[in-house]
Amino acid sequence: MRIVAVDTFDIRFPTSLELDGSDAMNPDPDYSAAYVVLRTADGAEGHGFTFTIGRGNEVCRAALEALAPLVVGRDIDDLGELGRRLTHDSQIRWLGPEKGVVHLAAAAIVNAAWDLTAKAAGKPVWRLLADMSPQEIVDLVDWRYLTDAITPDEALDLLKAAEPGRAERAAHVERVGYPAYTTSPGWLGYSDAKLERLAREAVADGYRQIKLKVGADLTDDVRRFALARDVVGPDIRIAVDANQRWDVAEAVAWMTALAPYDPWWIEEPTSPDDVLGHAAIRRALADVAPDGGRIRVATGEHVANRVMFKQLLQADAIDFVQLDACRVAGVNENVAILLLAAKFGVPVCPHAGGVGLCELVQHLSVFDYVAVSGSLDDRAIEYVDHLHEHFIDPVVIDRGTYRVPRQPGFSAQMHPESLRRYSFPDGEAWR
Amino acid sequence: MRIVAVDTFDIRFPTSLELDGSDAMNPDPDYSAAYVVLRTADGAEGHGFTFTIGRGNEVCRAALEALAPLVVGRDIDDLGELGRRLTHDSQIRWLGPEKGVVHLAAAAIVNAAWDLTAKAAGKPVWRLLADMSPQEIVDLVDWRYLTDAITPDEALDLLKAAEPGRAERAAHVERVGYPAYTTSPGWLGYSDAKLERLAREAVADGYRQIKLKVGADLTDDVRRFALARDVVGPDIRIAVDANQRWDVAEAVAWMTALAPYDPWWIEEPTSPDDVLGHAAIRRALADVAPDGGRIRVATGEHVANRVMFKQLLQADAIDFVQLDACRVAGVNENVAILLLAAKFGVPVCPHAGGVGLCELVQHLSVFDYVAVSGSLDDRAIEYVDHLHEHFIDPVVIDRGTYRVPRQPGFSAQMHPESLRRYSFPDGEAWR
Repeated sequence: MRIVAVDTFDIRFPTSLELDGSDAMNPDPDYSAAYVVLRTADGAEGHGFTFTIGRGNEVCRAALEALAPLVVGRDIDDLGELGRRLTHDSQIRWLGPEKGVVHLAAAAIVNAAWDLTAKAAGKPVWRLLADMSPQEIVDLVDWRYLTDAITPDEALDLLKAAEPGRAERAAHVERVGYPAYTTSPGWLGYSDAKLERLAREAVADGYRQIKLKVGADLTDDVRRFALARDVVGPDIRIAVDANQRWDVAEAVAWMTALAPYDPWWIEEPTSPDDVLGHAAIRRALADVAPDGGRIRVATGEHVANRVMFKQLLQADAIDFVQLDACRVAGVNENVAILLLAAKFGVPVCPHAGGVGLCELVQHLSVFDYVAVSGSLDDRAIEYVDHLHEHFIDPVVIDRGTYRVPRQPGFSAQMHPESLRRYSFPDGEAWR
Repeated sequence: MRIVAVDTFDIRFPTSLELDGSDAMNPDPDYSAAYVVLRTADGAEGHGFTFTIGRGNEVCRAALEALAPLVVGRDIDDLGELGRRLTHDSQIRWLGPEKGVVHLAAAAIVNAAWDLTAKAAGKPVWRLLADMSPQEIVDLVDWRYLTDAITPDEALDLLKAAEPGRAERAAHVERVGYPAYTTSPGWLGYSDAKLERLAREAVADGYRQIKLKVGADLTDDVRRFALARDVVGPDIRIAVDANQRWDVAEAVAWMTALAPYDPWWIEEPTSPDDVLGHAAIRRALADVAPDGGRIRVATGEHVANRVMFKQLLQADAIDFVQLDACRVAGVNENVAILLLAAKFGVPVCPHAGGVGLCELVQHLSVFDYVAVSGSLDDRAIEYVDHLHEHFIDPVVIDRGTYRVPRQPGFSAQMHPESLRRYSFPDGEAWR
């Protein structure tokens, strides 16, 4: 398929008005998408986006425009080559390399190409991936900088080992769904009463894990965590998320203080760039949990690329890989991250929420289960109940699980009316 | 001083026509600057820029426009606060955090504020810094994420210990200059004859170190290195630079093959994000040099921020810190990096070349010598003889040393005619 035009959009939702999404580092986000549509001569469309939290979304859109000449007038049939094309332009690469705004924009375009390809194939993206041969999957990956941790041959072996069980696992996950956890109760801007109510509802709705934001004030965190634990009881996992608020020593002290309430993991305790910091925190929290066990460490939503995930795994720095559909360069780089995680035996629990991230990551987790890790153990996809109404094929949650998507594509397409109404700064929502 | 307006420019030089700056990853750069002018009500101007290599420079300019509201109408008297203001906007931070396009743009504005402040003080930036008290210097730094490696108190002690020798070292460096090395002979696109001629001229000009680009073809590299060694003799240091071309094992094999020619350091052997990869390469090259010694490892021009430098030092991954004036968030973050390097006892040899990088980093190295590390041992600033004619206060090189800058400001200001002629896409040079 040849791309003949690329349209870009700056879409913003005024979520800061309700303090949805408020945390210790992000007090007032306006959930936004730098959104892109790839068009073919016969009228087919691939939709993709990257997620931001407001100001600067126009800079991501400028980066989409800078990358557009790499796809207009060219084929996207080889999706592996497309991924490398979008991240290896020698001049644009200087602006990262492979990180920040230009990488967010590459994610949007790569994901749009997957949406287009999957629609043409009449399959959801997870199925398109799961129907590929091990070699085809290996060929999606940019192997540069990975081979000291996993080689293409090792990845091939791993995928071949998982191949016999694919059909059975696909049938299973289509039947029972993929486990979810919910962050909806835990935003910092919510009152104690709202936290209690939403935590109670989460358990009633079938969730086995919830997540609380922490890191602004320890006294508040202890009170909120105690309330939540009291509401949900000892058997529901409660993860906590500091959104990069701490230095290493502060993270250890803070989490030691929260340990009596049995946190399932501490997410983003410090800078997402700090591999050695995460490793030090994880070592220090190895025996402070109520049962003398470890407090687990998780990160990923701001981890810039596969090279950083590689090191987090090499350094034994994390217990959970929280990949993000749009932070790294889309499906291709996430396939690399899934392969790394499988090699190191670390479960993947994707970051979601925001705008449309739940819609995207469900495809990656289902593919991981069907064709890569082959496991659901300790896996769960984040779920936040925001902004799904803007998508043509929104996620379906049932009793604490994601129902497996069935429509062709990447579930990435917004309603035309949403694109119009929330266009910044001229859409009706912003006038 | 209050900023009343911010002007931005997309400046590009068509350097790809001559293959100046060509290396294994960047075959055809058009050296560019996303350039900013801060203006006060009384007509004072602070000039700053970030360096890119062409396409995407307009994305950096868009990021400058996104950051401009953080300075227009506000004071810049507290430069420490200014640095944190430009990197901590909660919505824009999402696009990094502290890396890529938004960080490049923050660098340009922070540096412009230093230019403005130094002009108002009637001092070059290095002198403005070197006249600050240890506490004032410590207060410039964003300490978040650093305290597991160096605390503000440790930095204060280090600066106080260097304080008594400041005046003597300032007089010394003003008299003899700061050592330089030259990359001019070594671009990959140059013929063997041009390499030989330029290497010979470098030694005649007084340089004690040159640098060659490597990494595209091993046979070529061996031939070029042997030629260069033959021309300059055994006593001139020859560094080599792979510009991120290799995986870990490839770096070790390639450098083992080049070891007989006695490389002084290998620069950017692999991804700038790969702390553990650099550490592994450095360990593997510990005893392959001709005298049984180590091949030293250097990196920095693409290292995203202080958190990454911190880890490179914590992991014993590098022998030289190659800070860049515009990759991290300007003077302030580079002060943090100088303090980290001093704490770990690793020499700083700044990345330069490009557009105006030589002009900026000389201030940082002179400040380092006068007030931080207090040493010139194994220090040298990169020098490339390109594009200096566009600057009002260009570097002055004499017998292989940088003469210390004396004009007020950051040596960052381009001639108005250069800003006009090389404006992209409408300047005369691009029409």
